[in-house]
Amino acid sequence: MRCRRCRQPPVIELRRHNAAFCRDCFFHHVQEQVRRTVHDFRMIAPAERVLVAVSGGKDSLALWDLLLDLGYEADGLYLGLGIGEYSDASQEKVERFAAGRALPLRVVKLEAEGPGLGVPAVAAASRRAPCAACGTMKRHYFDAAAFTGGFDVLATGHNLDDEAARLLGNVLRWQKDHLARQRPVLPPTHPKFVRKVKPLYLTSEYETAVYAFMRGIDYIVDECPNAAGATQLLYKAALDRLEVESPGTKLAFVKEFLRTAQPAFAAVEQREPQECAGCGMPAYGALCSFCSLVREVETRRARTASPLPA
Amino acid sequence: MRCRRCRQPPVIELRRHNAAFCRDCFFHHVQEQVRRTVHDFRMIAPAERVLVAVSGGKDSLALWDLLLDLGYEADGLYLGLGIGEYSDASQEKVERFAAGRALPLRVVKLEAEGPGLGVPAVAAASRRAPCAACGTMKRHYFDAAAFTGGFDVLATGHNLDDEAARLLGNVLRWQKDHLARQRPVLPPTHPKFVRKVKPLYLTSEYETAVYAFMRGIDYIVDECPNAAGATQLLYKAALDRLEVESPGTKLAFVKEFLRTAQPAFAAVEQREPQECAGCGMPAYGALCSFCSLVREVETRRARTASPLPA
Repeated sequence: MRCRRCRQPPVIELRRHNAAFCRDCFFHHVQEQVRRTVHDFRMIAPAERVLVAVSGGKDSLALWDLLLDLGYEADGLYLGLGIGEYSDASQEKVERFAAGRALPLRVVKLEAEGPGLGVPAVAAASRRAPCAACGTMKRHYFDAAAFTGGFDVLATGHNLDDEAARLLGNVLRWQKDHLARQRPVLPPTHPKFVRKVKPLYLTSEYETAVYAFMRGIDYIVDECPNAAGATQLLYKAALDRLEVESPGTKLAFVKEFLRTAQPAFAAVEQREPQECAGCGMPAYGALCSFCSLVREVETRRARTASPLPA
Repeated sequence: MRCRRCRQPPVIELRRHNAAFCRDCFFHHVQEQVRRTVHDFRMIAPAERVLVAVSGGKDSLALWDLLLDLGYEADGLYLGLGIGEYSDASQEKVERFAAGRALPLRVVKLEAEGPGLGVPAVAAASRRAPCAACGTMKRHYFDAAAFTGGFDVLATGHNLDDEAARLLGNVLRWQKDHLARQRPVLPPTHPKFVRKVKPLYLTSEYETAVYAFMRGIDYIVDECPNAAGATQLLYKAALDRLEVESPGTKLAFVKEFLRTAQPAFAAVEQREPQECAGCGMPAYGALCSFCSLVREVETRRARTASPLPA
């Protein structure tokens, strides 16, 4: 096999593309794939300001790198989730990446913000799975940072494998609400929301990992310690096995969903958000899900701290 | 753990039901499950005549046994597919089952019918996967036997695992036409079709296997030799792993599909079938898919048999 583009000896083979690439042509392949995704789904207009959510992992750092390469003005946003050493190590990776390239980085540490609650504390007090608590917290701080920073677009590093696994999970229980919102671009439904985009939507985890490695990006390799046993990883493993037998399974699953099935689910009536009585961000009830969660944690803590009735 | 129903020591544990049963109560559990499925989906009215498609495997023989137990008048239909020793051995199992209980059995051997074509010959000449050729052939002979025999209902032994695997396959490529028709009851769309039902729709493969074994049903244990490497088995394996981690996954997948998502797909415009110019059975083109396949085989054979041009 030779590089599909320049016919030189290849360094990587991509079975789902039935192609091999040399190093430079692999960079070109990933960049073109992301450029086309951004263009075809109208993710980012040329002059728009982008906030990239960076975790320190391969996907989000590769995404930041790619968006800059494509000529976008993109600031980084790192959320310190308070997950012990894992959070410390990932923050260091992000800061080193930004410093080495002189990039603007915003750091928000959950424990230093309003209610002073990191993910482990919220999960423990609310008796939620850590990943569920983390999702609610992250969404809130992403939205708030994008809005207060005056950005046009919030970009996240979800890759094809993430999307396929999430789709499988949503499909196994036919969660219509989630299926209705599972798209590479979410237009804002409220003036305090910005557009959310996933430029790596059609780029596999393998591609982003190799890209990050070959570009010399120093990322955190460890999985979040809370992810062990997460159902998301089970779904990924199931899809990985199907992909080995039939390369292209994940891409077809995600692409055909968008083309064929998603419109039916998206037709489900969408409610208009109001403003949260707690934080002022958009909410589908009196409180947004972040403020509900925080209140739940505070109520439970107050109950535990108060003396037992005599 | 004790038997959920009578508190005696159990012989079987069903994780997805979070229950254990003794032998008699397990029979009662399966019978009730099938009775409720037949009732809730209005599969068979009391006086209707049922034709049960029996392959010699555990599911179809258990189904025949269960339908008789539930008081239905049910004849068996065995199709001789012409798959060598496998077909001979499965026919023997079916004939012995019917003879031992003095049940009416119809045997149709494909190689003795009209075009005289068994599955291997059709698959080879049409260059189709054997399972694809087999599906088309079986559907035709099932439909024709049910219609000419004056039956009201055709019942097949598809179990929960079959349906979940088929659903996963259809969902991975979002095959809307297939999703629109994947239901436990298919009402006839033409006077020459009869209603098709799957009474084991919510009964797992494990349940039917244990049921058949405990009822002393002698069934063919070997898989069809053509099934090796079939994608259906890959999907089953993927779902088996998810079921182990989260018992009830398959049931929720299939049940929620029916409740939540299937109506959206079924709303897709359904065409009315005409009559096939070849065999007179319903067809969506000038020829039904069976006659198209037979014509393809005959054309290819004629071409091969004719002398080379000089």
